[in-house]
Amino acid sequence: MLNPLHDNLIIEAAAAEQATASGIILHNAGEEKPAQGTVIAVGPGKLLENGTRAPMTVKIGDSVVFKKYSPDEVKIGGKEFLVISEADVLAVITK
Amino acid sequence: MLNPLHDNLIIEAAAAEQATASGIILHNAGEEKPAQGTVIAVGPGKLLENGTRAPMTVKIGDSVVFKKYSPDEVKIGGKEFLVISEADVLAVITK
Amino acid sequence: MLNPLHDNLIIEAAAAEQATASGIILHNAGEEKPAQGTVIAVGPGKLLENGTRAPMTVKIGDSVVFKKYSPDEVKIGGKEFLVISEADVLAVITK
Amino acid sequence: MLNPLHDNLIIEAAAAEQATASGIILHNAGEEKPAQGTVIAVGPGKLLENGTRAPMTVKIGDSVVFKKYSPDEVKIGGKEFLVISEADVLAVITK
Amino acid sequence: MLNPLHDNLIIEAAAAEQATASGIILHNAGEEKPAQGTVIAVGPGKLLENGTRAPMTVKIGDSVVFKKYSPDEVKIGGKEFLVISEADVLAVITK
Amino acid sequence: MLNPLHDNLIIEAAAAEQATASGIILHNAGEEKPAQGTVIAVGPGKLLENGTRAPMTVKIGDSVVFKKYSPDEVKIGGKEFLVISEADVLAVITK
Amino acid sequence: MLNPLHDNLIIEAAAAEQATASGIILHNAGEEKPAQGTVIAVGPGKLLENGTRAPMTVKIGDSVVFKKYSPDEVKIGGKEFLVISEADVLAVITK
Repeated sequence: MLNPLHDNLIIEAAAAEQATASGIILHNAGEEKPAQGTVIAVGPGKLLENGTRAPMTVKIGDSVVFKKYSPDEVKIGGKEFLVISEADVLAVITK
Repeated sequence: MLNPLHDNLIIEAAAAEQATASGIILHNAGEEKPAQGTVIAVGPGKLLENGTRAPMTVKIGDSVVFKKYSPDEVKIGGKEFLVISEADVLAVITK
Repeated sequence: MLNPLHDNLIIEAAAAEQATASGIILHNAGEEKPAQGTVIAVGPGKLLENGTRAPMTVKIGDSVVFKKYSPDEVKIGGKEFLVISEADVLAVITK
Repeated sequence: MLNPLHDNLIIEAAAAEQATASGIILHNAGEEKPAQGTVIAVGPGKLLENGTRAPMTVKIGDSVVFKKYSPDEVKIGGKEFLVISEADVLAVITK
Repeated sequence: MLNPLHDNLIIEAAAAEQATASGIILHNAGEEKPAQGTVIAVGPGKLLENGTRAPMTVKIGDSVVFKKYSPDEVKIGGKEFLVISEADVLAVITK
Repeated sequence: MLNPLHDNLIIEAAAAEQATASGIILHNAGEEKPAQGTVIAVGPGKLLENGTRAPMTVKIGDSVVFKKYSPDEVKIGGKEFLVISEADVLAVITK
Repeated sequence: MLNPLHDNLIIEAAAAEQATASGIILHNAGEEKPAQGTVIAVGPGKLLENGTRAPMTVKIGDSVVFKKYSPDEVKIGGKEFLVISEADVLAVITK
């Protein structure tokens, strides 16, 4: 299991067809893959200068769109996940 | 539905003819499209170092002009929207 | 009407002949147009880290000289205006 | 023995086969080696502007994935270790 | 009359012969003109994050040497002046 | 005698053979010389924004590994020393 | 007389032979001249965000080594001096 640090999120990227089905697709400039996925793990929050942590807005299970030009990719059990900072999440998708 | 994070806004870009009709057109240096549109969703505000959020000035329904050199674009139900930070909004248009 | 955000100003650029008449001309390095004009709208002020806004110094009607390498330009009713940050205003002209 | 300063960590990089066995592999863009390893020493924490140190999250023995484009390498007794800042650790691996 | 904003100064540049006469000449790397002159107007001071203004050190009439790689130039009644930030003043010349 | 300012350290670089004998060698990317040495003088600490100095961690006599891409070099009595900031010290070597 | 602003120092550079005689020579990467000299004037200190000035460490008469890649040079009565920030002083030389 991966426990993110700081304000990092572990994201399962949406397959192209899933993203299309949801009706929401985010295109980053010059990128082909929709930058959309499901949050599977959430860090404790960014440490502020006063020593406390900024609360996280995103929760496990959230469907998110994000900007991330070259995300770090991590494979767990042969499956690929992305690690992104919450600062790069643009919006949470709700129904 | 898209719920923006941080100080992000979801913007429906004005069509070229609409922008012209309103009599207000913003040209960014080296860009063809008028950077103008209607706010359809507003984030909770940027988190400050003291742990509180800066209040947002822009409201849903506001007509705004903005500077945004390469905005993130997101498609919802086949329709394209822009995601921009309120920091990149130059002014709100009122009558 | 344009209501600027942050510390933005809407500026009506001085015509070349007007600028010359006033006897004050500002030349930015490598630019032809005098960077001078009249303030027609003033934002609420830059938000500080403590959550308050820095008061604006410039007022509507002020004649200002400014440095602005590639100002955002906005057309209202066919007339062109500039949007600049008060941080780029160098001085206010008084008689 | 190496006692890291600031928020530095001494990391024993996972061998390629070990990383594969754990089922977790992190690929940084444009890098071949899995950026994964075991923490063997932990610094006292980054000094904040208020004069206190930010507590470290990572502990000795933790298995971590990290982003580090050109880590400093140090040889101790012929064996190679990495020195990275905790800010570059993405997640801690648990079972 | 020009009333500078922020920590700006209006400077009347010393003529080459004047600068030589005073016996003090500042050469910036790669520049021919002595970066020396007399202060003719002083801004209210830079706004600090706590909302107050930093007091200005330089006064009207001061003779100053400054570093300024490409100062903004402004013409008033056909005479040329420089606008520089007090942060770029190196020293005040006294007798 | 050299009394360092700020958080600077005067370092006597380890000779290549000494570094090898200690069994600890740090290689910076693209550098040949082991970045290791002995601290011979310690500055008073970096001045923080609140006006106090951050305490130094490193002491005279400490054996340190550091990253320093192009350290300032100073010769005292024909012998060469390095001047580096404590921020560039990675770890202290103990037995 | 030159009265430096901010944390600036007026430095009389050591002649090459003097620097050699003192037995201390600082070589900056890619520079020929020893970056060493005597302090002849000291500024009031850098203004901090809380409105106070950071005290200066260096005093008039101090012999200092400094890093300064392209120092501003000022001629007083035909004699050349350097203007550098105390932040660029590496150490004070004492006997």
